[in-house]
Amino acid sequence: MTTNAFGGDCLAGIRVLDLTQFEAGPSCTETLAWFGADVVKVENPAAGGDPGRRLGGKPGADDPYFLEFNANKKSITVNLKDPKGLQLVKDLALKADVLVENFAPGAVERLGLGYDVIKAINPSIIYCQVKGFGEGSPYEKNLAFDMIAQACSGIMSTTGELDGRPLKPGPSLGDTGTGMLLSISVLAALFRRAKTGQGEHLQVAMQDAMMHYLRIAFAVQGNTGKAAPRASDTSVTGGNPPMGTFPCKGGGPNDYVYVYTSRANPEHWRRLLAVIGREDLIGDARYDSPAARAERKQEVDAMVTAWTIQRTKHEAMDIIGAAGIPAGAVLDTMELHSDPTFEERGIMQTIDVPNRGPYKMVAWPVRFGGRPPAVKPAPLLGANNDDVLDEWLGLNKDQISGLRTANIIGS
Amino acid sequence: MTTNAFGGDCLAGIRVLDLTQFEAGPSCTETLAWFGADVVKVENPAAGGDPGRRLGGKPGADDPYFLEFNANKKSITVNLKDPKGLQLVKDLALKADVLVENFAPGAVERLGLGYDVIKAINPSIIYCQVKGFGEGSPYEKNLAFDMIAQACSGIMSTTGELDGRPLKPGPSLGDTGTGMLLSISVLAALFRRAKTGQGEHLQVAMQDAMMHYLRIAFAVQGNTGKAAPRASDTSVTGGNPPMGTFPCKGGGPNDYVYVYTSRANPEHWRRLLAVIGREDLIGDARYDSPAARAERKQEVDAMVTAWTIQRTKHEAMDIIGAAGIPAGAVLDTMELHSDPTFEERGIMQTIDVPNRGPYKMVAWPVRFGGRPPAVKPAPLLGANNDDVLDEWLGLNKDQISGLRTANIIGS
Repeated sequence: MTTNAFGGDCLAGIRVLDLTQFEAGPSCTETLAWFGADVVKVENPAAGGDPGRRLGGKPGADDPYFLEFNANKKSITVNLKDPKGLQLVKDLALKADVLVENFAPGAVERLGLGYDVIKAINPSIIYCQVKGFGEGSPYEKNLAFDMIAQACSGIMSTTGELDGRPLKPGPSLGDTGTGMLLSISVLAALFRRAKTGQGEHLQVAMQDAMMHYLRIAFAVQGNTGKAAPRASDTSVTGGNPPMGTFPCKGGGPNDYVYVYTSRANPEHWRRLLAVIGREDLIGDARYDSPAARAERKQEVDAMVTAWTIQRTKHEAMDIIGAAGIPAGAVLDTMELHSDPTFEERGIMQTIDVPNRGPYKMVAWPVRFGGRPPAVKPAPLLGANNDDVLDEWLGLNKDQISGLRTANIIGS
Repeated sequence: MTTNAFGGDCLAGIRVLDLTQFEAGPSCTETLAWFGADVVKVENPAAGGDPGRRLGGKPGADDPYFLEFNANKKSITVNLKDPKGLQLVKDLALKADVLVENFAPGAVERLGLGYDVIKAINPSIIYCQVKGFGEGSPYEKNLAFDMIAQACSGIMSTTGELDGRPLKPGPSLGDTGTGMLLSISVLAALFRRAKTGQGEHLQVAMQDAMMHYLRIAFAVQGNTGKAAPRASDTSVTGGNPPMGTFPCKGGGPNDYVYVYTSRANPEHWRRLLAVIGREDLIGDARYDSPAARAERKQEVDAMVTAWTIQRTKHEAMDIIGAAGIPAGAVLDTMELHSDPTFEERGIMQTIDVPNRGPYKMVAWPVRFGGRPPAVKPAPLLGANNDDVLDEWLGLNKDQISGLRTANIIGS
């Protein structure tokens, strides 16, 4: 038996040429890096590399944003404006199993690294592209960022108060959500390639990807014939009271507990009545069915609130959850970050970043034999110029030094 | 060259024993089915199978909810209360490459199909479990649904108006979002297994998975030292005006256009001034920097609104987008469903469902050689009893007939 690598060895030997920046592309290639693929990020030495490195925070240190999306990768700096730099990337593409890019529409082709060029060099490569809108969409040439994808995909139309304006959800689903669907596709293509040698051209549009996460809203529309409504604090399916966020003691912005009584399980409501000291209403026809409670929503919600408002969200979650009713405190990022059980379980891991110091970050959440793969810090800009050019291309010290002197690679 | 299966052949020959219901588990196994794995859903004949089949809508027909999460799968009906039914599932587990379950905590073990039992039968199986909370969490025994995971992971704390209560985003990220991260992990484990034969025990908690999508909020906290705020219509990072949803002609709930001017690209603002007929302000120090505009947010937003309110959201998106500024109309599910370009590109596909008729559904969004894999309708309950028991276990017609007569499999 070898030591358990907790999944970190699954993709050992796979080489990924990573031409991505910001989040949608990097979150995809990072999944391959968690599992031990050799992911080499190609960055522009003149511009300071991936703009994600410098989104804010501490001067001279890579931003937490960059750390989150580039763990376990390597970095090389190549001047793509120089024909010799471009050739270097083509040489790397010949050795790569996967190439991923998320430049603006048309940019990678203008650069001279489009699919047709790379395919001619390496026919069995899995070449992957992330754009805002798909080829054949009226907006295929448009720029997009996370929020544009969320606007154009139904996500914002279903987020907000029932009578309020459309809002953007907290998560950057347009970026990371897209990256995850591309990652699944890369892995499926890699599995086939290991047997057949077949390359592939993968393309995903952020707008298209978002609809994959919104399929319940499309299912609701399939039943009602109308556009799905805003989820409010319940769901696009509506929902049966009591269901939603109930205010708790403290009165802070997140002092709420979510309580859900399922239509499919009448026991949830009866158990909840016992919890809130209203056993007298168990079996009472005025409240016993979801339809009856829907007619008395205000009254039902007030009954639950009268109980929750006297407890903290943690007390409320503990008591309601232990009674067999789905319940959850509305936790903020600080509460989660401060909860030691995430680090104990490897869901958060503390890394030592050379230009920053210790940083506790969110790791891959799926456990392999009890624990997620280990996080290695995102690379400093150009940290792997020497070892990658040696390992992938067999260049010797003098050759690498020559490239550096000629400003083809960064210093 | 073989015919292009658009990725639908990537996992040919892989067998998946699917003990999932509702969404988090089914969305995971469905990804394997899109790519041609033989995914066999084991359902309870007495209860009418996966409860997702009957969530609403047309009596006697499988709900759109079920169709969306179970495409390209097979269905068998097995009575797990009968020891012979349980043995049948163990026999199938011996032939399976992957097993996925998302029962309530402890249920699969009580059923007698826990990891230790299945591992003893088939040591190289990839055995996968989805729960609400992780082992080692104080809530590991609690029930969870999509909304509970979103409450307990920071997602709701970052969704809503700045001064409003926490809301649930439209997408069912707690379910499908978790399913996607598990799918990536299954595929990574399958890749290694094809080389080494190594099995794996994968476990994911919905609460843990949600934080993966919220990493920008954790990065924001890493810089500010404070819990990430609500995204409102901008982002957890705050953002520089103009950025957000601007009202358009029509006045309907989704008559808004999202406009984004990036801090990293000063041209966005200057181009926008030209679009809205305020070239006179290009270079004006009162507005030229993100910091200056932040101080005059109301005035800047009013300037943009004065222009957007005179156009429909489609006109506004067309004009602003064409000028090289990220912009997107807030589209609802009906507008997306009615747009023929999604079906032309294979992003939506119309299936013919035996007990329902034609249904246009959201397909896998990543294109393989220009097109996503083809959708085959979700199976009717027990539709594949005969062929699966034949193909996986080599049972003959008489043996299958005997199981049916004894109510070990459904009729």
